[in-house]
Amino acid sequence: MADDLPKGFRAGAAAANFKKAGRDDLGLVVSEFPCIVSGLFTQNAFQAAPVKVCREILRRCAPVRAVLANAGQANACTGEQGLENCRATQRMVAEKTGLAPEEILPLSTGVIGQQLPMDRWAAAVPELVGSLGSRDAEGFTRAFMTTDAFPKFAARDLELGSGQVRLTVMAKGAGMICPNMATMLCVALTDAAVERKVWQAMFRRAADKTFNRVSVDGDTSTNDTILGLANGASGISVGAGADIALFEETLTDILGKVAYMLVKDGEGASKVIHIAVKGARDDADAELAARSVGHSQLVKTAIYGGDANWGRIVTAVGYSGAAFDPADVSLTLCGIERFSHGQPVNDGREDALALLLRAVDIRVDITLGNGPGAYMFLASDLGHEYVSLNADYRS
Amino acid sequence: MADDLPKGFRAGAAAANFKKAGRDDLGLVVSEFPCIVSGLFTQNAFQAAPVKVCREILRRCAPVRAVLANAGQANACTGEQGLENCRATQRMVAEKTGLAPEEILPLSTGVIGQQLPMDRWAAAVPELVGSLGSRDAEGFTRAFMTTDAFPKFAARDLELGSGQVRLTVMAKGAGMICPNMATMLCVALTDAAVERKVWQAMFRRAADKTFNRVSVDGDTSTNDTILGLANGASGISVGAGADIALFEETLTDILGKVAYMLVKDGEGASKVIHIAVKGARDDADAELAARSVGHSQLVKTAIYGGDANWGRIVTAVGYSGAAFDPADVSLTLCGIERFSHGQPVNDGREDALALLLRAVDIRVDITLGNGPGAYMFLASDLGHEYVSLNADYRS
Repeated sequence: MADDLPKGFRAGAAAANFKKAGRDDLGLVVSEFPCIVSGLFTQNAFQAAPVKVCREILRRCAPVRAVLANAGQANACTGEQGLENCRATQRMVAEKTGLAPEEILPLSTGVIGQQLPMDRWAAAVPELVGSLGSRDAEGFTRAFMTTDAFPKFAARDLELGSGQVRLTVMAKGAGMICPNMATMLCVALTDAAVERKVWQAMFRRAADKTFNRVSVDGDTSTNDTILGLANGASGISVGAGADIALFEETLTDILGKVAYMLVKDGEGASKVIHIAVKGARDDADAELAARSVGHSQLVKTAIYGGDANWGRIVTAVGYSGAAFDPADVSLTLCGIERFSHGQPVNDGREDALALLLRAVDIRVDITLGNGPGAYMFLASDLGHEYVSLNADYRS
Repeated sequence: MADDLPKGFRAGAAAANFKKAGRDDLGLVVSEFPCIVSGLFTQNAFQAAPVKVCREILRRCAPVRAVLANAGQANACTGEQGLENCRATQRMVAEKTGLAPEEILPLSTGVIGQQLPMDRWAAAVPELVGSLGSRDAEGFTRAFMTTDAFPKFAARDLELGSGQVRLTVMAKGAGMICPNMATMLCVALTDAAVERKVWQAMFRRAADKTFNRVSVDGDTSTNDTILGLANGASGISVGAGADIALFEETLTDILGKVAYMLVKDGEGASKVIHIAVKGARDDADAELAARSVGHSQLVKTAIYGGDANWGRIVTAVGYSGAAFDPADVSLTLCGIERFSHGQPVNDGREDALALLLRAVDIRVDITLGNGPGAYMFLASDLGHEYVSLNADYRS
């Protein structure tokens, strides 16, 4: 097995029978060395038990050693019992690995409102710990997939002045929230040595430019979590300015690659809509407009159908709350201008556009015409497969 | 033909060939007497030409005489040419009816970004004006339907102290915005005599309790318009307190009936979700929570599939922005409690619930547990028919 994890990390998985028999649904990654950690969590008021526990751990500002992830039950809306169960899973793994429970970051994804099946956990943990070292990035990723059509991971080696380090990112999610299957989960690992504050700041910026700019259905789950662990096992420090900039650029690039996979695998999605807004009063206004377009059911169904229905895009900009003069707005679809300074462009290029709309990646460029603000957002389309997948998910 | 319009109103229609040949797509209603008028318009920044013209007319605070409605072209995002075309249609009708152009309120619905086909207008207006008196409420309503599966109208006679008056409401829309076919349009007529300020205030309150509390897809169109015309032809004044209260109650009731029809005919909708939030900090917070649930794709697809997936509802409350303590929240689906004070209710009533979820009207009750705030919201479900209708609407 080609090991694409950074140095000092080992991964394992087990089939714990949480949902379907015979497939991995419990994963563990352990670092040989203490890791500094960054974490970003859902803004949903209902925070799943593992989100609460991860936040507690991060508040300690102490090193961590492992990430423990399960699919099948989200352990959200499960009250005190859910929190106690989450801590019990940490203790189970701690006992078999020799780690402290608070060094183990828990992640869960699956049905909301169901308690973790603790007997199955107890039965599976020995196999899980025994499997450490047997899985690569794909193997760990597969252990916490839910409705994902394919595993989402990427690894990259990069040369810093003083030597080579590796970044590996593993994620699940086919929507910012999958069915009642909550959740986007992501674990980024590196063997670089990097200062806590530098790592946390760059991780937040990189996530903001990538994971925070994608949407499948606009629903924010109870479990969304992005973790970044750096263990320094390469012996290479991310030190001076040029190093830091290159490292952050690579981190942003690889997170962006995985975020794109999430949108492409948006439940039932067939296309990725790239929405670029510029000329807004400020970036925040550009973001409002881009998100409004990306969340519009009417835009998403039109793109699914290959319909050059640009009026729906303009309409979504119009109710976004962004400030602009309608007479200044222009819109280009797949590179073909359809709306120019508030006027429709009727130039008979519908046939050319219809062909371009058959592509998987669809570009929408919107200019608001009253400032320097810009934003880029990725959204999936909305088709029959989404409805089929979500209308009867639990059954 | 049973005439269900209030006294002094006559309606006509014509097949102008704006989209499909051979069906009425141009409607006109004319009052024998001057009418006071109320109007509510879309909040979208892109306001269609007819919306701009209606707003100009209302700003004059002068009586009006007619409503002119077309289907096929929304006359939105059409620039100066669109505005000029709209005024030209007023002049055409004015010339044939003897009314002043500014007494004629224009309404349009259809494809965004296309100019009105003025030659077809010129050809159809004589037939339209000649047909006055030949259509009832249904006939006028049919003239501005787009994707509507059925015409939406209702009439009600009510006894005031001094005699009988009639209220007739005619609407179109299968979504707050239909495909690129924008739009919810509504015309309410009465032969009661009512003071301008009283009429405008009660009309706004009634619309706020009805049309502003329904959603199909959350998209707000460029053309949404609700007009209320009162011509006093009954000779009966809405005068003292009890009269006013009864009249407003009836107006609210009949607008609510028609608003319900819009949701029921939500594009491809098979169910109406009644979302009642109570115990919120205030009404505004209750509204946030109710709208968030009503707009959630995941909730709407679950209800479409008859899936008792209450975790999705709780999740949508969680990201609504309403303030509450998750431990205080309870949720009842079709009268069966699923979530109580932050804890799941697992009582084996899933089978009973599955049966209840087959109904057309689905009730969701949410208690936030921290105040007196309440809100009621109606939303359609989201199914394959919505996707089919919207993926290839223009073709």
